[in-house]
Formats: sequence, structure tokens, C-alpha cells
Amino acid sequence: MDRRHYLIKDASLELLVRRKTKISDDGIRGKKFEIFCEIFLRKRNGAKESAEIHRELEVPFSSRKGWNIRKSNEEPATPIPSYPKRVLFRWSSEPAGRRRLSYPRARTMRGLWAAHWRSLGRKILHSSSSSSSSSTLSSNLKLLGPNLPDVWMMPSSSSSAFRSQSSANGQTANVINGKSIARAIREGVASEICRMKETIVKSPGLAIVLVGGRRDSQTFIRVKLKACEEVGITTYVEELSEESTEDEVLRVVSRLNNNPSVNGIIVQLPLPQHVDEERIINFVSPEKDVDGFHPLNMGNLAMKGREPLFIPCAPKSCIELLLRCGVEIMGKRAVVVGRSKIVGLPTSLLLQRHHATVSTVHSFTKNPEQITSEADIVIADVGIPNLICGSWLKPGAVVVDMGTNQVQDPGVDQGVRITGDVCFEEAIKVVSAITPVPGGVGPVTIAMLLSNTLDSAKRAFGFI
Amino acid sequence: MDRRHYLIKDASLELLVRRKTKISDDGIRGKKFEIFCEIFLRKRNGAKESAEIHRELEVPFSSRKGWNIRKSNEEPATPIPSYPKRVLFRWSSEPAGRRRLSYPRARTMRGLWAAHWRSLGRKILHSSSSSSSSSTLSSNLKLLGPNLPDVWMMPSSSSSAFRSQSSANGQTANVINGKSIARAIREGVASEICRMKETIVKSPGLAIVLVGGRRDSQTFIRVKLKACEEVGITTYVEELSEESTEDEVLRVVSRLNNNPSVNGIIVQLPLPQHVDEERIINFVSPEKDVDGFHPLNMGNLAMKGREPLFIPCAPKSCIELLLRCGVEIMGKRAVVVGRSKIVGLPTSLLLQRHHATVSTVHSFTKNPEQITSEADIVIADVGIPNLICGSWLKPGAVVVDMGTNQVQDPGVDQGVRITGDVCFEEAIKVVSAITPVPGGVGPVTIAMLLSNTLDSAKRAFGFI
Repeated sequence: MDRRHYLIKDASLELLVRRKTKISDDGIRGKKFEIFCEIFLRKRNGAKESAEIHRELEVPFSSRKGWNIRKSNEEPATPIPSYPKRVLFRWSSEPAGRRRLSYPRARTMRGLWAAHWRSLGRKILHSSSSSSSSSTLSSNLKLLGPNLPDVWMMPSSSSSAFRSQSSANGQTANVINGKSIARAIREGVASEICRMKETIVKSPGLAIVLVGGRRDSQTFIRVKLKACEEVGITTYVEELSEESTEDEVLRVVSRLNNNPSVNGIIVQLPLPQHVDEERIINFVSPEKDVDGFHPLNMGNLAMKGREPLFIPCAPKSCIELLLRCGVEIMGKRAVVVGRSKIVGLPTSLLLQRHHATVSTVHSFTKNPEQITSEADIVIADVGIPNLICGSWLKPGAVVVDMGTNQVQDPGVDQGVRITGDVCFEEAIKVVSAITPVPGGVGPVTIAMLLSNTLDSAKRAFGFI
Repeated sequence: MDRRHYLIKDASLELLVRRKTKISDDGIRGKKFEIFCEIFLRKRNGAKESAEIHRELEVPFSSRKGWNIRKSNEEPATPIPSYPKRVLFRWSSEPAGRRRLSYPRARTMRGLWAAHWRSLGRKILHSSSSSSSSSTLSSNLKLLGPNLPDVWMMPSSSSSAFRSQSSANGQTANVINGKSIARAIREGVASEICRMKETIVKSPGLAIVLVGGRRDSQTFIRVKLKACEEVGITTYVEELSEESTEDEVLRVVSRLNNNPSVNGIIVQLPLPQHVDEERIINFVSPEKDVDGFHPLNMGNLAMKGREPLFIPCAPKSCIELLLRCGVEIMGKRAVVVGRSKIVGLPTSLLLQRHHATVSTVHSFTKNPEQITSEADIVIADVGIPNLICGSWLKPGAVVVDMGTNQVQDPGVDQGVRITGDVCFEEAIKVVSAITPVPGGVGPVTIAMLLSNTLDSAKRAFGFI
């Protein structure tokens, strides 16, 4: 039997990146890199095929946002000691003092050398489909499609990417106030928790598992803990060292699964590279999966007529904002730009449950601007600041911006500010309503976590 | 706390249909009915709100296709003794000799009074969203969207709906030969099973659970059993009476879950109305879920970068056909018309994994023809014969027709023939490739069931 069509299963990608300029931990955006890019396709018999590309490119992402950067003295292993779905990025400064930049999932490998990767992607697909035509039996793996990263072209530097919101004028759109909506939700949660304490002398409990000491994760956790405290949710933080084994993490999750005081479990992502995220997430009890990332909850979200125990917080907050603003969803054209597992994908599923006509635009979409400009409702989950500018938007559209990107801005306090995926000042002249970043989806997402935790506790305690 | 926004949870719909002409079991299409349609929204406190519609309409569906028709002497209960998600249709001929037409899920309630239902749908949504604006806490149930049936307008009788394929001329498209592709897949499966028998003296086993004596289900099962026999898969048929309780069905599934000779379990749908389909499907071991309907497998299909243990057979066959015909999917615009849990939805997820830009069109879509006409790849899963005619299709598009509709045709042997959702003779003048019905997706879907069962056995036996 011809097995060449199994190639994709073992496809591993390796980029060797030689940097030419000094980099610091807190910002590699805009730095020039000399890139040696090599793609390996490893066959089951161990042989490999490869293609090479050598180019000088500017890196369009920030270092600490969604990327796991660690020091490493390892030589790049060739072929990659690969977990099949894992994609490794390595970059080296000098032979001594190697650093490794790696991301275990293709999901957020965005903002990176789009044209480049697309050509690689095509090469993989081509290699796969041409070899399969002669085979008689297909594998699920081929049918599932090549697992390629979503990478986008950055808006060109001449665009309005880094203009400040404050210069916006001619404003016509409603700016949706996520903070006040979040406050209303939090107050509702708090009053329900009061009622719960008074009636059954119990309160919801939320556990957060943090593996390793990532600064951004710690910040996220602090925000969540504070929000819990304010509404009366008891919190449990399980901090594990960066070096913890997968089994150690599983043991902690297992203990939390069995702890009746814990109604919700969050495993803070990303996990260190040696820990299999999928295995850990699958191990969280679906009844305590307040993040809604368990495949059982995701499957029930996808399947019309079923009810997941939890809806992921960001998509839930998106719909909540639309409903609270009186936006009619049914029958409307909705475009979700981006398809991440935890934001874009579940948001598109949820919009479809509300009977919108949903199109999902991603980095392989040939004319994203044109498709997006037909939408009544635009959801942005790209991870690229200001990708979606005025020309992408239909006059009168409603825009929910789920992006949270750090951009450097010498004009602000810390030199860095948060911006969305939508060019706010252009959009506001075109659309009828838009969520700002910050102050839009973000606070409502946190409120939804509280609400999910409360729901879980109500279910567990049989409290109506 | 204002609880009015919980309304949707308990929404039940009831149509009272008084027929005016004689009907027979094997065909109610085209019969005139006087319809008293009443929609009930039941609140948690037991109170209800209702709206009434009275109209005379022609029923555009065939009786035995996807509908469960049983005699019943019950009076229509008001308010409905409702499982919240259940939608009951009842029609009565005369006070004596009542019959009940019911369908437990909204999924395939298509082909029925679209405009009518849409207005009802809007009423529900309106009632829900207007009442929720004053509330402070949202429930998952509201956020999941109203669970409305997908109903489509029938193509008008002046359309080419029932023209015979044989009159097609000016044919320019490739007609994709599903039969020969299926044969190739079956041969591959058969040779693998031979190898398995020779090497480890084991063969795959498939169990089919049939509850009740529906004639169409029995036909489907016969086809599956014959296909299994031909490739060397051992089959086990578990027939239960129509009156079996849910627990009896669960016990049978449990026994099959624990039987090491059984590698795949199919629960033939639809189940009798008193048996909860969701509960039964969820109980099938995900490792033996060769239909791919378990939410765990569906969730892993939805989540990019993950691998479900099984892909549902019809979507898998759709992609298989595209790949085998050398159709490039990546970057193409794909429109899936229809969003059923077992065909349309997983097909759209699978196309997206192949990096198509996917839009899902359903009965709430305002301009389905226009959106579909922009697609490079059109997948039809509507259940209405010839809904998609030439004007819906872009020249050069590739069409996969997943519909299998019975239409009356005095010109053929049994007076009934099978046709797809696409008007074949119009489409063939426009598109570059199309699957016929019958002989397109159908045989490949059966082949995929065999392939899934083989894969499951290989996994269970550790056979590579």
C-alpha cells in the first residue's frame, strides 16, 4: 500500500532564524532577522524531505505575547524530535548563548511572514495531495487537512496602525462600553453569590493552575483573582514550577477535579512546551471547565440543539455585548476574522447558533477585506494591531474587537499600550457600533468567567 | 431578579394541523392542510404566552423521510409536556383516529413553511431580547441562541424541480463517479482486513443498534450490513422493539462498549421519540463512535490542531471526493448550504481545517442564492429536492450534493426516485464538477463507515 499520503501526520516545520540585531526580552518586534527557513517532512520510515528559504525579514510580533521564550543551550535537533503537531521556532544569536523561541501550537502563530508561510503551506499540501491520488485508502489525518499556522501580513507601515485614538474625529459610531456592561454582570453575580451564601451557606470556588513563572500569565491571574474576590468567589491558586512534569500537573488537576469546594478550574495557557496542553485540558472535569475549552463542551457548542455546560468566556462576552446593545443577530451576515480555538472558532459557532450567516476569514482567505466588508457584524480575533481598517468595514456594521495587542507608544506611561485588531479611529467613522480596546470585550470576558463559575456552583450545589 | 430572559429555555412550539385531504403513510407531500399554528412560550412559573396563526398550506415534505409518524389517541396536551428542546407537530384528521407526526429535534425540520416559521422565530427572538435588556445576569441558554428549526421555501412548482436528468444536454461538467471511488476505498479496506486476518487472526466488528421497526432505517441497515460483509467486517445487529425504554437501549450500548470484538457502534437514527437521542449518542464509547457523532469527537473535529478519533462519514466522504478529484480546497471560498449536526456542520468544520474560507448558509440566510453563487466549492445538505438551481452556482464551481430526497416520478419503477438538493441538469451546464445523486456521496459515505471501522479495529488491536 502506498503510504505517502501519511506524510502530513509527521510533518514538522523548523525555522532557523539568525538574528542580526540585539534583542531584548520585552520586544523583538521590528527587529531585523536573517532567516534560514527549512521545512522538513519526515516520513514514517525516518527519511525526510526538505525545502530551504533564506531571507532577511522584520519580525512583526512582540516577544512576550503568546510566545514562550526561554534560554536553551540545545543545538537545533535535526530532524526535530517531533511531537507531530508541534512546530518549533529556534533562533540563535551566536553559537554561544542560544535562545529558543517556541510555540507549541500553530494557533497563535500569527503576524509572521505570511507570504512566506503560505508558500510553504502550499508546498505541503501539494506534496500531500499529489501523492495521495494514487492511494486507495485515506487516513483521517489527510482528511483533517494540513495543520498550518494562521499567519497574516502586517498592515504596511504607511497605514494608520499606530495612530492614537485621541486624534479621532468625525465620530459617528456608538462606542460600546464594555466596562459598564461588565460591572452590571459582576453586580448580578455578586448578588446571586450573596443569596447563595445566605441560603445554603456556600460560595463558588475557582482554582487557577499556573505552571511556570510567565510574567504575562501572572498578570492575567492577578486580574482574575481580584475579580473573583470582589464578587465573593473563593479562589485557589496552584503554582507549579516551570520544570513540573505533565504527570505532576495532571495530579494537581485531578485533586481539583475531586475537590467539592472547587467549582471551576482554569489552567492558565500557554503551558511550558514539554507539557501537552491537549492532555491537560482534556483532563479537566467538563463539569468544572469554566473556560469552556474541553472538547466535550466545544462539541456540544458546535452541535445545534445541544447545550454545553460552559461557553468559552470571550465568545460568550462577544454575544453578550451584541445582545445587550440590541444588535439583531438572526439572519445577519457575520464575518469572524480569525479562527483560534478559544476565541474565533467558538465565536463563529455561537453566532451560527444565533442564526447569523457566518463566514470565517483567516490568513488563507484570498480577499479578506472584500468578504469582511459585506458583513453586518464583524468579529476580529487576529492578533495584529489595526489589521482591519476602514475599508474592510461596511457602513453601519457592528464591530466587536477581540484583539489585545501590545504596541509600543513613546507617548504613554509605560511606553506600551494595548490596541485591538481594528483601526478604531477609521472604523468609528464607518460603523454603527464598535467595542474599544481596552474597555470593550476584555472586562466582559472576565465577568463571564465569574458568571460561568457561579453557574457551575449552582449546578453543583443544586441551587436555583 | 428579572428572570424573563430565561423564557427561551422553556420555549416549546406546537403546531396544530388539521388536514383537509386524505393522506397515506407513504406520501403527504403536496397535500393541503388547514393549519392552526400556535406557539407557546412557557415561563418557569407555568404561565404561558402564545401567538396564533391560521393558514391553509401545502405540505412540502414526504412522510417517511426524517419524520416519525405514529398513531396516537392522545389529545394534544396544552401546555405541552415538554422536554424544553422538543418540538412537537401534531395533526388530527377527525376527533377520533388521531395521528401524531412528531420530530424530536429541530435539525431536519426543513422544507416546511419557511416564511411562516421565520416570523415565529423573530417573534421568539424579539420577545427574548427585549425582555433581557433589563436584566443584569445572562444565562448560557440565552447566549446559546434560540433553538429554531431550519426551514426552507420549496422551489416553486414552475421550477425545474422534477425534470429528469436524462433530458440534460449541453453538459460541460465532470460528473464525479462516487461509485468507482467507493469501490476503490472498499477494496483498500478489504485488503487491509485480509492482511489483519492473516497477521493477527482478527477482523473488525461493527454493531448496529436499531430501535423500532422503521422501514427506512431497516433499508439503511441492510445496505451497511451488505457492505460490511463484502469487505470482511463482522456485524452484530441489536434490534430492540419500538417500546424499549431508554435504559434498555443504554444497557445494550453498554454491553457493546464492553465487547472487545465490537470496534464500531452505530445507533441508527432517528430513535423513537421517547428515547433521548443525545443521551444515547453520548453513551457510545468515543473509541467506538464510527459515526463520529459523539460530542467529544465533534469537539476535536472543531478544534484546529486536534484529531478526533472519527470523522463523521458523510463529511469525510465529501472531502475525500474533493481530494481524489484534485480539487484544491485551501484558500477557496466554500459555501455549505445547510447546517445539520451530522452533515452540514461537520463538513464546514472539515473544510475550514483544509483552509477554505467557509460560509454556512441556512434557512435564516437572507440571500442564500447570492452568497452561494460566490463559492468555488458548494456543499448541499438541505433536504429539499432541486433547491439549488443553476443561478445559485458560479461558473466553474465544484458541487458536492449531500441531499437524498425521495421524489414521486410516475416514469420510474417504484413511482419514487432519489434526487439531490441540487438541480443536476441546470448545474451541470454551469459548474466544473458535480456529484450526482444517486451515485455520488452516498456510496463513498458507506465506504467511509467501513474505513472508520477498520481504523478503530487497528487502534484497538494495535495493528499498524
